[in-house]
Amino acid sequence: MGNEKFHVAVVGVGAVGKELVRILEERRFPIKKLTILGRTRRREKIGGQSYEVLPASSATWEEVDLALFAGTEGAKGACAQYGWQAVRRGVVVIDNGDDFRMDPRVPLVVPQINPQALRDHQGMIANPNCSTIQMVMALWPLHKVVPLKEVIVSTYQAVSGSGSAGIQELREQTSAVAQGQRPYQLACKVYPQPIFSNAIPQISSPVEEPLGYFREEWKMMYETRKIFSASDLKITATCVRVPVFNAHSEAITARFESAFPLSEAQRALQEAPGVCFIPSGEFPPTPLFCSGQDKVYVGRLRQSSLGEDTLEMWVVADNLRKGAALNAVEIAEALIEQDLLRPFSRRSS
Amino acid sequence: MGNEKFHVAVVGVGAVGKELVRILEERRFPIKKLTILGRTRRREKIGGQSYEVLPASSATWEEVDLALFAGTEGAKGACAQYGWQAVRRGVVVIDNGDDFRMDPRVPLVVPQINPQALRDHQGMIANPNCSTIQMVMALWPLHKVVPLKEVIVSTYQAVSGSGSAGIQELREQTSAVAQGQRPYQLACKVYPQPIFSNAIPQISSPVEEPLGYFREEWKMMYETRKIFSASDLKITATCVRVPVFNAHSEAITARFESAFPLSEAQRALQEAPGVCFIPSGEFPPTPLFCSGQDKVYVGRLRQSSLGEDTLEMWVVADNLRKGAALNAVEIAEALIEQDLLRPFSRRSS
Repeated sequence: MGNEKFHVAVVGVGAVGKELVRILEERRFPIKKLTILGRTRRREKIGGQSYEVLPASSATWEEVDLALFAGTEGAKGACAQYGWQAVRRGVVVIDNGDDFRMDPRVPLVVPQINPQALRDHQGMIANPNCSTIQMVMALWPLHKVVPLKEVIVSTYQAVSGSGSAGIQELREQTSAVAQGQRPYQLACKVYPQPIFSNAIPQISSPVEEPLGYFREEWKMMYETRKIFSASDLKITATCVRVPVFNAHSEAITARFESAFPLSEAQRALQEAPGVCFIPSGEFPPTPLFCSGQDKVYVGRLRQSSLGEDTLEMWVVADNLRKGAALNAVEIAEALIEQDLLRPFSRRSS
Repeated sequence: MGNEKFHVAVVGVGAVGKELVRILEERRFPIKKLTILGRTRRREKIGGQSYEVLPASSATWEEVDLALFAGTEGAKGACAQYGWQAVRRGVVVIDNGDDFRMDPRVPLVVPQINPQALRDHQGMIANPNCSTIQMVMALWPLHKVVPLKEVIVSTYQAVSGSGSAGIQELREQTSAVAQGQRPYQLACKVYPQPIFSNAIPQISSPVEEPLGYFREEWKMMYETRKIFSASDLKITATCVRVPVFNAHSEAITARFESAFPLSEAQRALQEAPGVCFIPSGEFPPTPLFCSGQDKVYVGRLRQSSLGEDTLEMWVVADNLRKGAALNAVEIAEALIEQDLLRPFSRRSS
C-alpha cells in the first residue's frame, strides 16, 4: 500500500465512463497508467483533455490492476462479455452495470455502508443501481439506530440515467418545443414517449416477480436487501422518469420497528458520512442544485402523519456521481485501504 | 327542472376560469346568461371566442343564479372577498379556491363520491384541491369494497397548477435553455427556483401541524378525510412540482383493512364512473397524453410487495379539468339533478 500506483482501465465512455475519468483525476486516484476502452478506437474529450479510446474487444487485460466498467448504454453488457475474463487474468473488476449485482459471488457495495463485504471478493465487485445508492445512503444511518421495517419510495429520475442519449433526447426536445413544436408530437428515440413535459412511470422492463413491478423498482427492492443483509426487509418502489437533465430525487416513507424521535433521526443524518442533511426551514434539496455534487442530500425530514414509528424524507443525489462513478471509485479506494486491490487468483493462492 | 336555464357567473379568468367557460360550453350547461368577472374590465379570448370581462368589485350579484369562482392566481381570495356576499344575495357559489373547503358549513364535493353532501348546502359549495380530486377518484371505488387504512402518496404536479403564470414561466425557461442559457441561471418569478430540469418538493407554504408538511400536502390529507367522512383515515403526502405543463400524476400506496385481491380491485376501477382504468401490459397513463382529457386515469395497479392488504397505482388527470373546472361544473350539474340549484335564503325559508 502507501505509495503503490495502479494500472486502471475504464470501460465505456458514455455519461458514466466520462464521469469515472473525471473523478479519478479529481480524487488523485493512485494511477500508474490509465487505459480507456470503448466499442471503437477513437479519441474522446473528457474535462477539456483528449484521451485515446481503445477497442474493448482487443484488450488483453495483461498488467491491468483495476477495471471500472461504466455499464452505461454504449457499453451495456461489456462486463458480461469481458468481466470474468479480466478477473481470470488478474484484474479486479468494479462493475457499474446490473449483470452481476445479485450474484452471490459478487459483493454489492456502498463503502459508507458495507465495506466489510469487500473482504472476500473474488475479483468482481458490483456497484449498486443509482436510485438504490442514494436511498440506502439516507436509510442506513437511521436503520443503525432503529431497525427498518418497511420502506415506500417514489422516484423522480433524471434522463442522464439513460446515459448521454437520454440527455441528448431531452435537449433536442427542448429545442423543438422552443421552436414551436407541440410536446405530444415530439420525436422519441430513447423513451417510448416524449420525456419533455412528461412523467413516465416505467423504467427498464417489467419483471415477472413481484408481478406489476419494473426492473428499476426490483433493483431498489432487492439490492437494498443485499446491501443491508436484511433479506426480510419490506420495500416497495415506483420509479418514474421526469424531464430533469441530471440528479435523481426520491420521496421516501420509512417505517421502523419502534418509535423514532425526530431529533435522533436528525442527529443520525447530520453525522452520517457522505450525507448532507438540510434541516427544515432551509430550502429543500433539488436536482438542479445537487447536480455535480458528491453528497447525498436529505431534506424534508419529518415525523410521518402515519405514526411515530414512521419518518419521511426527500433525497437527492447526482446519479452519475454518487449514484455511479463516485461510488465505484470509492469502492476502489476502500479496496486499497483494506489492501484488497489484489488479483483474486494471487490472493487466494 | 327540465328546461330551466340559469344566469351563470364565472369569477376569475386565469387557467381555471378559461377552462370553466370552455367546459360550460362543451357540456351545454343550461345557461340563460353568462357573466365573466375578473379584476379589471377587458375582453378575453377563450376557445376562439371573445368575451367581455366585468370587474368583480362592481358586481351586484342580482339575478345571478350560480357563481363559479375559479380560485386561480389572478382571482385568489375572490371568494373570500365576494363569496358570502353573493350567497346572501341568493347566488349558489361553487368555489375552486381553498378558503372554505374545511368550513363545516361548506360541503366539499366530488359528485362521483359524495353528491349527498350537497343536500344541506347553505349556498356555498367547495371544489376540492386538484391533487385531492384525482386521488379520491381512484381510491373511493376501492374504499367501498374494502375500507382504507393508510394512504401514502407522492405527487408529480404540473405548472398549470400555479395558473397561467406557471405555464408562462416554464415556457420562457424552455426558450431560454434552447437559446443556450444554463438551467441553474434561469430567471424565476413564480417558483423559488427554476422549474425547468428540476423537481421542487414544496408546494404552497409550510403548515404548523402536522409539523414538516406543506399546505398542498395538508390539503390532500384533510380534504380526503372530509370527502370520505373518514376522520381517522391515515394519509401522508409528499407534493412535488415538476416541469410538466399540464396534468398531475400521483404514485399511491394504499393499505386496506384486509387483503384486497387484485382482480377485485381491477373490477372496481373498471366499473368506476369518471375513471379510465389502464390494465397492466398497456402503456401506463402519462401527463402528456392525459392533458385535455376528462377522466382520471389509473394505471400500474399492482399488489404491493408490502403485503396482500396493500395496492399500488399511478393516477394521472388533467388538473385544470377534473382537478378543477370540470369537477366544479359537475357539482353544478349534480345540484340541478337534485333540484338544489336554488338560493339558500329561499330554500331555507
